[in-house]
Amino acid sequence: MAFKVIKEDILSENDGVASEVRASLAQEKTFMINLISSPGAGKTSFLEVIGPKLKEEGISFVIVTGDCFTSRDAERLDALDLPVVQINTGNACHIDAQLVASALEDVDLEGMDLVIVENVGNLVCPAEFDVGEDVKIAILSTTEGDDKPIKYPLLILESALAIINKTDLLEYVDYDMDFSVENIRKINQTIKVIKTSCKTGEGIDAFLSWIKDKIKIKKIT
Amino acid sequence: MAFKVIKEDILSENDGVASEVRASLAQEKTFMINLISSPGAGKTSFLEVIGPKLKEEGISFVIVTGDCFTSRDAERLDALDLPVVQINTGNACHIDAQLVASALEDVDLEGMDLVIVENVGNLVCPAEFDVGEDVKIAILSTTEGDDKPIKYPLLILESALAIINKTDLLEYVDYDMDFSVENIRKINQTIKVIKTSCKTGEGIDAFLSWIKDKIKIKKIT
Repeated sequence: MAFKVIKEDILSENDGVASEVRASLAQEKTFMINLISSPGAGKTSFLEVIGPKLKEEGISFVIVTGDCFTSRDAERLDALDLPVVQINTGNACHIDAQLVASALEDVDLEGMDLVIVENVGNLVCPAEFDVGEDVKIAILSTTEGDDKPIKYPLLILESALAIINKTDLLEYVDYDMDFSVENIRKINQTIKVIKTSCKTGEGIDAFLSWIKDKIKIKKIT
Repeated sequence: MAFKVIKEDILSENDGVASEVRASLAQEKTFMINLISSPGAGKTSFLEVIGPKLKEEGISFVIVTGDCFTSRDAERLDALDLPVVQINTGNACHIDAQLVASALEDVDLEGMDLVIVENVGNLVCPAEFDVGEDVKIAILSTTEGDDKPIKYPLLILESALAIINKTDLLEYVDYDMDFSVENIRKINQTIKVIKTSCKTGEGIDAFLSWIKDKIKIKKIT
């Protein structure tokens, strides 16, 4: 029982900081997304495709990317001249609100349309931590099996959007798309599902349209 | 700093129980492996292939399989008539020593050759928790990218064997095998690397040979 209490304390302290982050973003009408996936489901590849398109559309954004140790993801994004702030979490298995708050200290949020948090690759812990985002986005992958939604239901429940990535590999893997989507909907009736491939470009426009709507709504509310 | 102290307390309590588990297994000369991978890297598929072969070889074993919520993995293994004990971790992101100790309470370890712990799909937290195993085994996958060893170095450092799974998909993904293996060796000079495919059977005999050696050594020491 002691562990449960400790965990509640940690989550409660985190939620306090998350509320502060959320309030700062609300003041600037900046929309924030928190991208969560398994290691290697394609978060960085997705940002490599989406980032340049957001720039083309004149959307101002910054990517806060979390890695346990390396700065590989940040370097990949920086190579595309995308605005990125790197967080190293050490052995921590998620980004918490304090890490995001610290990362945003050096960012000028005035007029910023979008903050993208690229979480540590992990389907469990990041789902529990509010970092002040408007929405969590679950990125699933066709190569990791169609049962992941039911095996990691908290993430699906907490997310506003589920991206099913790597559709270009569907013909080489055993992945029942209908089963996956059906289970996503059983867990979360209001979640939006977009199927994407960073190689063929499938679903990228659908995502851009979704995010632009969200940014627009945030500006007028 | 408080978090660091709490974490040290949790790990220290865990290590105490892990030592008890290790002592029970030593008494019976039972070898225990702790399988760790990302969600969907193929732990259960690997056991579906390995399990029947271990049976054929007359090796007695039990699989302790951890899942956050469902019993899907246990059902898949049970369908093959493999001996399995299911642990549900709820939102916990790893199996700890206490969960393994509880699971083994109902198992008759006398004469048992091997205990296989199938951890929760996560590259971060399980690497930190000793559950009383003889060795940790990292299962990587060609579909999750060749940079995972350097992005999750603790797991590689803690493991005696790295399995690089899904080699059948190598031709469809951008995965530099040499880069991956080179990085594994940079982190851990003594780790064994076996490349496997549960579809083509590549590497399965190499694994069986490795595990039989380990079981034999445990019996005579």
